[in-house]
Amino acid sequence: MSEVAAGDPGVVVGVDIGGTKVLAGVVAADGTVGRTALRTTPGRRVVTSHVEDALVEAILEAAGDRSLTAVGVAAAGFVDSAGERVRFAPHLPWQGEPLRDLLQARLGCPVALDNDANCAARAEAHHGAARGATSALMITMGTGIGGAVLLDGVVLRGANGMAGEFGHMQVVPDGRACECGRSGCWEQYSSGNALVRTARALMAEQPSVLQEMSDGNVDRITGPMVTAAAEEGDLVARRAFASVGDWLGVGVANLVAALDPELVVVGGGVSAAGDRLLEPARAALQRSLVGAAHRVVPDLVAGRLGPGSGMVGAALLAARSAL
Amino acid sequence: MSEVAAGDPGVVVGVDIGGTKVLAGVVAADGTVGRTALRTTPGRRVVTSHVEDALVEAILEAAGDRSLTAVGVAAAGFVDSAGERVRFAPHLPWQGEPLRDLLQARLGCPVALDNDANCAARAEAHHGAARGATSALMITMGTGIGGAVLLDGVVLRGANGMAGEFGHMQVVPDGRACECGRSGCWEQYSSGNALVRTARALMAEQPSVLQEMSDGNVDRITGPMVTAAAEEGDLVARRAFASVGDWLGVGVANLVAALDPELVVVGGGVSAAGDRLLEPARAALQRSLVGAAHRVVPDLVAGRLGPGSGMVGAALLAARSAL
Repeated sequence: MSEVAAGDPGVVVGVDIGGTKVLAGVVAADGTVGRTALRTTPGRRVVTSHVEDALVEAILEAAGDRSLTAVGVAAAGFVDSAGERVRFAPHLPWQGEPLRDLLQARLGCPVALDNDANCAARAEAHHGAARGATSALMITMGTGIGGAVLLDGVVLRGANGMAGEFGHMQVVPDGRACECGRSGCWEQYSSGNALVRTARALMAEQPSVLQEMSDGNVDRITGPMVTAAAEEGDLVARRAFASVGDWLGVGVANLVAALDPELVVVGGGVSAAGDRLLEPARAALQRSLVGAAHRVVPDLVAGRLGPGSGMVGAALLAARSAL
Repeated sequence: MSEVAAGDPGVVVGVDIGGTKVLAGVVAADGTVGRTALRTTPGRRVVTSHVEDALVEAILEAAGDRSLTAVGVAAAGFVDSAGERVRFAPHLPWQGEPLRDLLQARLGCPVALDNDANCAARAEAHHGAARGATSALMITMGTGIGGAVLLDGVVLRGANGMAGEFGHMQVVPDGRACECGRSGCWEQYSSGNALVRTARALMAEQPSVLQEMSDGNVDRITGPMVTAAAEEGDLVARRAFASVGDWLGVGVANLVAALDPELVVVGGGVSAAGDRLLEPARAALQRSLVGAAHRVVPDLVAGRLGPGSGMVGAALLAARSAL
């Protein structure tokens, strides 16, 4: 399918794979998104080829009858500095398989691979909220927390290609158990999973529409459900957002103390809640940041590219790599 | 005194002011240190001119009968991005006074000002442990914790000039009170002050030579005293180092998760204890760093320039600025 049919200039597809879903889309050079396709992530205890199947299916569905010029993959995991493998991912099954080459062989076109938050940051730097910022932090709140450091619009890769793993900074000694095998990680207090967990715990204290929305089975509660309940004025859902937002600001204050960026951009699924998440986060940032009275506290804003930012950034990377 | 006498090419002096002492020294272009002078820091509740007096006295004593070409000041506080003022310092009295200009007027030569950890990092990058590293973190453990991010040998300044304030990242929610006005800051668990505090607390549990060394007055215990006691095999002192070292590794793991540096250099007074501090820190880093089995864990090493690194780095900055 890599052969370019007469008159078909081909398309660049970006695909973002997170802990719960796979989103693929055709992305134009100016960052606009064309046709998209969605799949459920098969899970983290399946054989890796099942996950690759889901990726390939989503990519081909997005491309439709167009040929593939290049494909960019944004993965919620530790991608090596060469961009060849997912070395480790708390929510995905890969452990160092040569993912880029496997996909290139299956798709017949160049594939570029990077961490999802790095891709989101690249997209926001080129076409979104971080455009023109000298320094910015990207925080992606999905199943967990991902992150990236942008300096003059360029993503800091780190010695292992693993910079930006903000979600696994410890914020509570001997705190909540984390999928990474340790405990007290930031993403256990501020993420989509944390939002759901907090809402479930609060349901023991007061009634909530989440009871009805989940048919009385709290295991069925999802992040988007909590967002919808909060929109309806549900107090449990609103308290869950206040808690997750507060922890977001505490963790951002730590990062700002260390890096003093001009701007902090929050993306990922949970950021769809907008100020319901960001207002408590801004308050906590102001309260928790050392020397806040003696400095310009950075703006804490939602990403402009929404849930597609990882996909767009992956496509940008692929287009650049394919040149 | 800025007039250069015939045959006197002048000297560059670096001076480091921390929470407890002022160290000035003549520094040659290759980083070697000549004559030095030491003063006690007048404290953080005195009028600022007293602190400036101590700085000027130490600088002039170090210079001796040589004229001053330039002076670099490394200060344990938040220095603005223009290098003109200490905007805020938990252990020093300045709150935005135009320190650089005040000192230039008193000394009659160009003065450069930067944060002490930034200066230490610059010195280690040019002449010490971080030479040649693509990316490195500098942690300075003195009264508190200072820090700096080195990328290709250049110190990351940040939007306010305040990057690297690692000591005020919160590691314990509602933890120990900090001089910065908040609580649970890393430096309350891993620093010279934390070492002394931990040793004092442990003395309630078992006998210690620190009892005798402090003439029975635990308020007199100092960091160097704990280091000396540990050298003698004192168990309280050794347990205090184990605790402070463990917390050092936990905090470093958070920074490595975020920035993935090639190397971590530990300087400042407490680092004189060497492996007694660094061995427990390395163990905690390995244990606490996310994905440690899937990455190269950075080396955690002592700075090579010892307690003079801030002074040397300040002089380097002054010499460069004066060119």
